Amino acid sequence: MSAALKTETNPLFDKRLINAFVDGVIKTMKTMAQTDVTPGKPYIEQNLNVKGDIAGMVGMVAPPLKGTLLISYDKNSIFTILENMLGEKHAEVNQDVADAVGELTNMIYGCAKTTLNQLGYNFEMAIPSVIRGNFQISKAEKSATLVIPFHLTNKTTFHVEITVQ
Amino acid sequence: MSAALKTETNPLFDKRLINAFVDGVIKTMKTMAQTDVTPGKPYIEQNLNVKGDIAGMVGMVAPPLKGTLLISYDKNSIFTILENMLGEKHAEVNQDVADAVGELTNMIYGCAKTTLNQLGYNFEMAIPSVIRGNFQISKAEKSATLVIPFHLTNKTTFHVEITVQ
Repeated sequence: MSAALKTETNPLFDKRLINAFVDGVIKTMKTMAQTDVTPGKPYIEQNLNVKGDIAGMVGMVAPPLKGTLLISYDKNSIFTILENMLGEKHAEVNQDVADAVGELTNMIYGCAKTTLNQLGYNFEMAIPSVIRGNFQISKAEKSATLVIPFHLTNKTTFHVEITVQ
Repeated sequence: MSAALKTETNPLFDKRLINAFVDGVIKTMKTMAQTDVTPGKPYIEQNLNVKGDIAGMVGMVAPPLKGTLLISYDKNSIFTILENMLGEKHAEVNQDVADAVGELTNMIYGCAKTTLNQLGYNFEMAIPSVIRGNFQISKAEKSATLVIPFHLTNKTTFHVEITVQ
């Protein structure tokens, strides 16, 4: 078992941390995008290799922890969210969609960060990036990643991936 | 002129910061990959929209600053670097290439970070991510980005993109 999976010490197994992100997603989707989402069962992945149509990413620094928050959407989930959010139908993953994904990432991270810092964590702000196209994202350091699927009422899905060391 | 471009205050115009990254790239490429690289003329881009075959990215946190370091390679430049580094010819941007890009990103950031922190900055470690495929990367926040092209002796090029707020 790798160091990253020692359940006693890995912050990924701190329920308060997981809950802060889950709540941040639910709250942001509800208030910013009038979208109800339901978290699925979280699971751990050893070698993150994210594919998707578009993703928002933030490098998180919370001394002594470091990590990454990645929210990856398939086209249908982000189009649904944007329709709820802006009343606009999208059929293409363009710069407008990228801007919305960036904003959502910012809000979700900001919301989780506020909760976590009240609990004694020390998460710093960072600038999210948005990646689109036919991409794959991997980590430079081997580490466990917590993946939480979120389901929309129309059965589309997006994934929140949290790596913390 | 946006706040991000006020030359007196924007750290992107601090030559010591730029030099730390330039030196980090030159040193890392030389010592890790036996590759000589020459920096081209840096320029500022208002709306970063990076395309490439593969890129290493680190979210940088240096309270009160935050930023992103992105190193994007076209296939030919990274294949050349890998041939110098590992004696392996690559013809495909696969996981091995991604692992090497992750390592290079880590080293370049680590090297620049050491220099900058000796100068009084306060850069924290973060986990690099590697993105490959047919992607576009944009920023969630509008901000100026400093782009520095680096040329290899065989005329291939990679780009270092630094955003700091």
